[in-house]
Amino acid sequence: MSDKQHNRKETSKPETSNSESRKADDNERDNEDDDKADDDDDNNDEQPVRTNLVHELNIKAIDDILHDQGHDLDEQATKVDKRRRQFLVHELKELFESKLGAKHVDYGQSTASIVKNCCKELPSDNDESFYIVNLSHYARQYHQWMHFLGRIHPFYAVKSNPSSFIIEVLAELGGGFDCASAEELALVQKICGDKFDYAKRIIFAHPCKSISHIRQFRDAGVQMTVVDNEDELTKLKEHWPDAKVLLRLKTDDRHSMSPFSTKFGANERECITLLRLARKLNINLVGCSFHVGSRCLDPNLYKESLKLARRIFDIAQQDEFKFDFKILDIGGGFSGHNWDKPSFPEVAKVINQTLDKIFPESEGITLMSEPGRYFSSGGMTLVTRIIARRIHNLDYKSNEKIVELNRKMSYVQSSSENENEKSDSEKALIESADNIYYINDGIYGTFNAIIFDHKVFIVHYIKINDDNESCEQFKSVVFGPTCDSIDCIAHSINLPLLNIGDVLWFPDVGSYTSACASNFNGFQTKKYVFIWKN
Amino acid sequence: MSDKQHNRKETSKPETSNSESRKADDNERDNEDDDKADDDDDNNDEQPVRTNLVHELNIKAIDDILHDQGHDLDEQATKVDKRRRQFLVHELKELFESKLGAKHVDYGQSTASIVKNCCKELPSDNDESFYIVNLSHYARQYHQWMHFLGRIHPFYAVKSNPSSFIIEVLAELGGGFDCASAEELALVQKICGDKFDYAKRIIFAHPCKSISHIRQFRDAGVQMTVVDNEDELTKLKEHWPDAKVLLRLKTDDRHSMSPFSTKFGANERECITLLRLARKLNINLVGCSFHVGSRCLDPNLYKESLKLARRIFDIAQQDEFKFDFKILDIGGGFSGHNWDKPSFPEVAKVINQTLDKIFPESEGITLMSEPGRYFSSGGMTLVTRIIARRIHNLDYKSNEKIVELNRKMSYVQSSSENENEKSDSEKALIESADNIYYINDGIYGTFNAIIFDHKVFIVHYIKINDDNESCEQFKSVVFGPTCDSIDCIAHSINLPLLNIGDVLWFPDVGSYTSACASNFNGFQTKKYVFIWKN
Repeated sequence: MSDKQHNRKETSKPETSNSESRKADDNERDNEDDDKADDDDDNNDEQPVRTNLVHELNIKAIDDILHDQGHDLDEQATKVDKRRRQFLVHELKELFESKLGAKHVDYGQSTASIVKNCCKELPSDNDESFYIVNLSHYARQYHQWMHFLGRIHPFYAVKSNPSSFIIEVLAELGGGFDCASAEELALVQKICGDKFDYAKRIIFAHPCKSISHIRQFRDAGVQMTVVDNEDELTKLKEHWPDAKVLLRLKTDDRHSMSPFSTKFGANERECITLLRLARKLNINLVGCSFHVGSRCLDPNLYKESLKLARRIFDIAQQDEFKFDFKILDIGGGFSGHNWDKPSFPEVAKVINQTLDKIFPESEGITLMSEPGRYFSSGGMTLVTRIIARRIHNLDYKSNEKIVELNRKMSYVQSSSENENEKSDSEKALIESADNIYYINDGIYGTFNAIIFDHKVFIVHYIKINDDNESCEQFKSVVFGPTCDSIDCIAHSINLPLLNIGDVLWFPDVGSYTSACASNFNGFQTKKYVFIWKN
Repeated sequence: MSDKQHNRKETSKPETSNSESRKADDNERDNEDDDKADDDDDNNDEQPVRTNLVHELNIKAIDDILHDQGHDLDEQATKVDKRRRQFLVHELKELFESKLGAKHVDYGQSTASIVKNCCKELPSDNDESFYIVNLSHYARQYHQWMHFLGRIHPFYAVKSNPSSFIIEVLAELGGGFDCASAEELALVQKICGDKFDYAKRIIFAHPCKSISHIRQFRDAGVQMTVVDNEDELTKLKEHWPDAKVLLRLKTDDRHSMSPFSTKFGANERECITLLRLARKLNINLVGCSFHVGSRCLDPNLYKESLKLARRIFDIAQQDEFKFDFKILDIGGGFSGHNWDKPSFPEVAKVINQTLDKIFPESEGITLMSEPGRYFSSGGMTLVTRIIARRIHNLDYKSNEKIVELNRKMSYVQSSSENENEKSDSEKALIESADNIYYINDGIYGTFNAIIFDHKVFIVHYIKINDDNESCEQFKSVVFGPTCDSIDCIAHSINLPLLNIGDVLWFPDVGSYTSACASNFNGFQTKKYVFIWKN
């Protein structure tokens, strides 16, 4: 497989985003599966040889990426028992086959051809939107994590995608969980049962907790949590006096897409106040945590944050406080895609080098982290249908005349009374489009990430009734299914003439999408199709 | 009651909004219940006399509003049988008492005192957020509708709040339903059962329908739908040939808070194309519908839209088309509050006058409408708790020094690398605040309406452990409960020093709030407390 030449023959990948400034290089790339595969599933000559050695292939996939990026594999090799993981992955594959009907798919098969096959297999009258979930993705990401950051135990941030299948895979492989609410904990409890080691494998990673939630974590046997303000220490003293508490540090997160430091974290001075109060209240402070913000674009922020943590570790053990910190939680912020710059191996390298210098293994500090997007993002593909269409024909384009006839009837003209310029320009874009499509997921569903997560979606299409082979592109608008005009996914993208029933699909929609979707207007993608890439 | 003087003694009503431009007069007012009541529940002298004649009081309440606004009651009196409605309301009251444990509350009791009582009655360790639902509100709004717009049958827009209790009240009183998806229909089916008249009391009011949804409406016996493009007519021809179809017109909605005309509606020229195609396909076109946009601020838009509808009615019956239009659907856009300008009676007056001129009763046109917000908005109050707090003390304020010490550690300084100016100013506001509160509902929950519905929320507080009577106000930030920093409800409002466990409550949160809320991070307001105001 590694000797194979991968021709990328994408049908179409226009960007769909409201924020023009975000058209970065990374959007030009498809998901990692596609990078390793051909688009044309009929071209069997180019398919990789199928093998059942799942783990071997997983590692090979990572090796390919590494090789492309000029990394020396041995240099950062993990010490985790690979044999055991290989066994577990094989077991998981069997489990999900029987439990969720996960279909095995050749590793080399492209997402495009998988989508096409899934659509073919559905009843012809089915026009529901659905997610394709590649379960092996989570296992592969776990392997990659252990390969590059073997010293750091990953606690999956459940919030990024609280789907039970992700929790199941990661729990099986040995991962821990970052839960931020009683409901997230209950989810893990439901999946992992009573025998799960809640003391060591769960962190209640919310610095501002409600008392009823504290009670539920405490009763479940969870021990670790974080704190960043004085009120919270007092609250813990009363309601969770035996908790193992990490100081949540405020970091520089200006280079992250979703910064957190406006909301959480204590700066150095506040840490000193907290150390003093914790000593007075006899709170069991055991270490530090930080979070460089979601999708961190600068690995040096980890470096700087680690240095700050080192400083707080040192201050904590001074005579005034006498805390012996033993846990360091480096939070999340990791991208879910190896084509992101900086790539995961690059970020890992910076972290490892810094750790080796200021938190060497010999010190015996327990290292942990809270990756969410890293695991969940690449695992899901959204498949939607064009449910309705509006061709902007001559009648429409000659709208202006109607305005005269009916006084103020049309919205074409720009007006100072309009709410703001942005909405004016959006209107103008929609107005000047050639074709308007309505699909069955939108801004209130998966695409909420355009608003809440600054996500840039990549759209692909499949013509189902492909009677028109024309490649002519038209300026198109894509609306979501609800009655609300804010529910617009793309104001202006180039697409060929598509029909009702044709497919628009969107790769890498696994994080902060379904997790934050609402059921507004009765529309929500609820159907899942599971695959396991061999 | 109508002779009573109502003193308004609000504790505090700072506005919480990101859009400064929206601080209109209407925000200075509390909900209608409060307008009719005193805030101090201990002052029994000022309480209205309790009576069991529910309907009488409802009508009296409307009479009060009308009287204040100088309306002549007889002039617009409805012809609907009041006796029957009175009986139904009384039955509903009994039904909800047994079914949902709805507590009876004196009509004159203020929302503030109801919230206080609800909090007192909860177990002391309960810190969940909840909604207080005033079920009689829906009945009262229905009465008001029939009083002012008796000619127009209201079809409740389920999307604004798909709670079963609203559907139940309105179905019982005789209302119809505007459903836009198969799931909304299924909800009405579940509540109203098989005997409900789906042909006459449901409209599938979505101009861009998926085929699977069409099938479900058709199979349920629904007959009415709307159309605004050629593809949809072709789709109906194939999948719902016997539907009664309304042409959805494109209107001028520039004066509405949420315009729809960028997404839906056919202009006059397109209507002519559609009439021609419908004749060719033998589609049963029966009338027109329009929607002036959500929260319409200019009643003249109804007037203009009605004139346009009249024109299309006339064109439709020309020899070329020969359609005999008999149904006119005037859509939604009605405010849920009588203090809004224009008020509901004012809007109703314009509509009635226009209808009398161009669609007189003698013509026998069936008039319908799709109010959502009108019914749902005022029925719900959100009660949240302060679950965590951060006092910005000296250590925090002297943050600047830390910046020097730790190079780039703090986010205080403004930087050209920051994403945009808006987020800079938000950061600065948060940074300069005196106190930061975290409550248990936020931007991903009820407050999604700040983003999606341009809603301005009004906040009230209740000190639970009221040991500090100081009225000193501090610049405060209110964050929602999730880990995301975007989850900020108010960047800068004045509040006194509040404690963890104190209550922030928000009236009139019934429309486009819970309907569009997600469960992100495991936080969502799911608890409801029901009351019935006698």
